[in-house]
Amino acid sequence: MVRFQRKATASDKDKHIEAHFTASDLIKDIVIGMADGLTVPFALAAGLSGTLSNSNLVVVAGFAEIAAGSIAMGLGGYLAARTDHEHYMAELERERFEIVMYPEKERQEVADILHAWNLPDSAISQAVDTISKDPDRWIDFMMKHELGLEKPEPKRARNSSLTIGLSYIIGGIIPLAPYIMIARPEMALIISAVVTLLALFGFGYVKGRFTGSTPFKSAWQTMLVGGLAAGFAYLISKWIA
Amino acid sequence: MVRFQRKATASDKDKHIEAHFTASDLIKDIVIGMADGLTVPFALAAGLSGTLSNSNLVVVAGFAEIAAGSIAMGLGGYLAARTDHEHYMAELERERFEIVMYPEKERQEVADILHAWNLPDSAISQAVDTISKDPDRWIDFMMKHELGLEKPEPKRARNSSLTIGLSYIIGGIIPLAPYIMIARPEMALIISAVVTLLALFGFGYVKGRFTGSTPFKSAWQTMLVGGLAAGFAYLISKWIA
Repeated sequence: MVRFQRKATASDKDKHIEAHFTASDLIKDIVIGMADGLTVPFALAAGLSGTLSNSNLVVVAGFAEIAAGSIAMGLGGYLAARTDHEHYMAELERERFEIVMYPEKERQEVADILHAWNLPDSAISQAVDTISKDPDRWIDFMMKHELGLEKPEPKRARNSSLTIGLSYIIGGIIPLAPYIMIARPEMALIISAVVTLLALFGFGYVKGRFTGSTPFKSAWQTMLVGGLAAGFAYLISKWIA
Repeated sequence: MVRFQRKATASDKDKHIEAHFTASDLIKDIVIGMADGLTVPFALAAGLSGTLSNSNLVVVAGFAEIAAGSIAMGLGGYLAARTDHEHYMAELERERFEIVMYPEKERQEVADILHAWNLPDSAISQAVDTISKDPDRWIDFMMKHELGLEKPEPKRARNSSLTIGLSYIIGGIIPLAPYIMIARPEMALIISAVVTLLALFGFGYVKGRFTGSTPFKSAWQTMLVGGLAAGFAYLISKWIA
């Protein structure tokens, strides 16, 4: 399951395109969004439950955070992806211009890249000829190896941001549910903490499978971050109030 | 200023290492942390100011969020970077094992990668010989071009997470400051909104310079995300309370 850690190389162009539409990518986005949605609203509610006497206010604050956090993550992620795409297109145009206007300079750049890979000199000049014969391949080579830019996929980026934003909302409702049902915040906190820490453990486990980490280690770490965030929020709000 | 968008290629190994210790990287981390710290605590405080009658409670909730958010971002980012590093080291060991145990298979993989780059056949066999002569270069080539993994820098990742976490705290204090000084939340909200939206515009502008976007466009977008997050948080908390 290290597949998602890989950036596409020229050699797995086809696999790369295919992988971007698998169910696993969807699961990954859901896990990212939910893990964040579980963490911050949980920690905020836990923090406030030591200070506020009524669960209603905790719920109001929790949902205000969910609204803010989901928009910041979802819309923020979407706009960042759009910027990446525009940046890529602008650089693409520049390379297209450069191979027409300064072909010798660009040929030299191909040679420099191949040289850095320790290819033998005779192979380099032959390779430069082959690459620079086809403008599309040439531009593709420069984008990837001179600029280190992978072609972004705007549609995938948009869906991904939407999924993460929605999952943040769903994740955030879990730690708040006990406060909706139980009027005394201290009581609600206990149930919220048990449910959320278990959920964080589960999501951390799944997340570990997507990030090349040991699932159990990822599970413990995700739970730890949530627990520490809640603990600090609790102490800070006790201290200020 | 598109430098930060670039992933390192073999051809700029030295530049890459150097770039990772520039002041610009520090500024980038500060901008990321502060922009997030400005957005979510601002939106939460704005959301609550329509519901709570006392600024004190808004301040408590705001600081609880800052504690939770800075730990989630800072510690979460640090652990993610450590996971990347461990993953890289595990894959490195595997490649080291494979070039000893299955040299022919690994030579074929080098040839496949070069083939996908459209290098001429005669160049490929010569290049495979050169690359596979030096085990370190060979492993380096496989890590980069078969697995698409760049060597992570654990120290840089740790400092980066710490900087982002601390900047989140500083960023978050800006929108809360008016609530500390003004008892009526509606009044405080007006000043908080003006100051924060201006600050988001400024940070968005700087962020644009680091992400290859047009600075003014980035400025407007960053302000828009903050404004929408605050607006939705306000509506949600009015609706629930």
